[in-house]
Amino acid sequence: MNRTLYGLCGADHRPFSPHVWKTMLSLAHKGLEYNKQFVGFTQIPSIENGATALVPVLRDGNELIRDSFDIALYLEEAYPDRPSLFGGEGGKAMARFIESWSQLTLHSAIVRIVLVDIHDQLAPVDQTFFRSTREPRFGMSLEAVAEAGIEELKTFAAKLEPLRTTLKKQPFIGGETPLFSDYIVFGPLQWARVVSQTRLLEPGDPVLDWFERCLDLHNSAGRSVTAA
Amino acid sequence: MNRTLYGLCGADHRPFSPHVWKTMLSLAHKGLEYNKQFVGFTQIPSIENGATALVPVLRDGNELIRDSFDIALYLEEAYPDRPSLFGGEGGKAMARFIESWSQLTLHSAIVRIVLVDIHDQLAPVDQTFFRSTREPRFGMSLEAVAEAGIEELKTFAAKLEPLRTTLKKQPFIGGETPLFSDYIVFGPLQWARVVSQTRLLEPGDPVLDWFERCLDLHNSAGRSVTAA
Repeated sequence: MNRTLYGLCGADHRPFSPHVWKTMLSLAHKGLEYNKQFVGFTQIPSIENGATALVPVLRDGNELIRDSFDIALYLEEAYPDRPSLFGGEGGKAMARFIESWSQLTLHSAIVRIVLVDIHDQLAPVDQTFFRSTREPRFGMSLEAVAEAGIEELKTFAAKLEPLRTTLKKQPFIGGETPLFSDYIVFGPLQWARVVSQTRLLEPGDPVLDWFERCLDLHNSAGRSVTAA
Repeated sequence: MNRTLYGLCGADHRPFSPHVWKTMLSLAHKGLEYNKQFVGFTQIPSIENGATALVPVLRDGNELIRDSFDIALYLEEAYPDRPSLFGGEGGKAMARFIESWSQLTLHSAIVRIVLVDIHDQLAPVDQTFFRSTREPRFGMSLEAVAEAGIEELKTFAAKLEPLRTTLKKQPFIGGETPLFSDYIVFGPLQWARVVSQTRLLEPGDPVLDWFERCLDLHNSAGRSVTAA
């Protein structure tokens, strides 16, 4: 089998990247087997002879595809007889909106909440890289970001209100069954689950119930890595 | 032709309801002719022998359908040979998310910005009704809401960032061409355009460019009513 997913992992080999999780569920959704090559931040430049600065990257036979959304589009086209990831052209277009919302609203908040947790589970060489790249990006120390993250946490659950309202109509963002749009939003919440013991959502929250349903999908693919 | 759209209008007979505008563009999208019956708030209970407390309502032959989303679903099913409003089942499901986001993020802000403008263009009997129902809902006078609306205006454009980011990928939320998801977001912006001279977005904003494209659609259906 010449199908390999390249992703990111910590010192304990646990994959945590939200974007790689989107692709792991996309592959599971299509029922496709694959090899996993999960590496630390500093090993990413060695993937496929320097093919990428970011993960996920999927090697599928002769094809090499970067970016979780582009990988989903590729899988949809390459494996049309497997369950659809988008439910049609409208779903492809609207999943872009959901990706934008998720990035701007969820990722930007979660990264502030779990930044030190991410750092702490990296291998030493990756910890040095992470601190030296993230501190200039945030304009402060990782610890100062974490301090501000306490405020982020207070307003986090409210940011998910559009999803909470949607779930009154249907069990998944994709409707009666999940689509890639669900995996888009699952990714950042799984990221937090894998790296951090911080509880983002309270028990009884319909969004948490949806997240648990997503963890159960495809033979509990999301539970193949335990919570931090 | 026994097809009638019931909507809301001010003293000058100009339709302003965001939800009715969603349906006007849905009907135009499907290329369907219809009669317009636009009334003031206090006349809504007399529509179709008391069939509804809210507009839009669509009478289509023997069918009577309420709610802009349900009307779009009805039109999609009743007129499958006309251009699709959803682009497939995935688009139907994800449009629910976009509706939730739009309601929670855009409607709740715009109503505070334009509340007095809405009041001012109503007929006197509807002004009395509007003030007596909205002031308890907001827990303050219309004028106090408008005062708070000045703060809302400062943060309004930023709320549209998920759409702004999406428009880097594609000209419409629906992709290369518009779908009902576009009309969902068009509705509240058209509401503001029709009732208020307050400028919500600055020239050059890609969201404003998208809104202008929406105004141009279907023989400029959105421009059939001039800006306030």
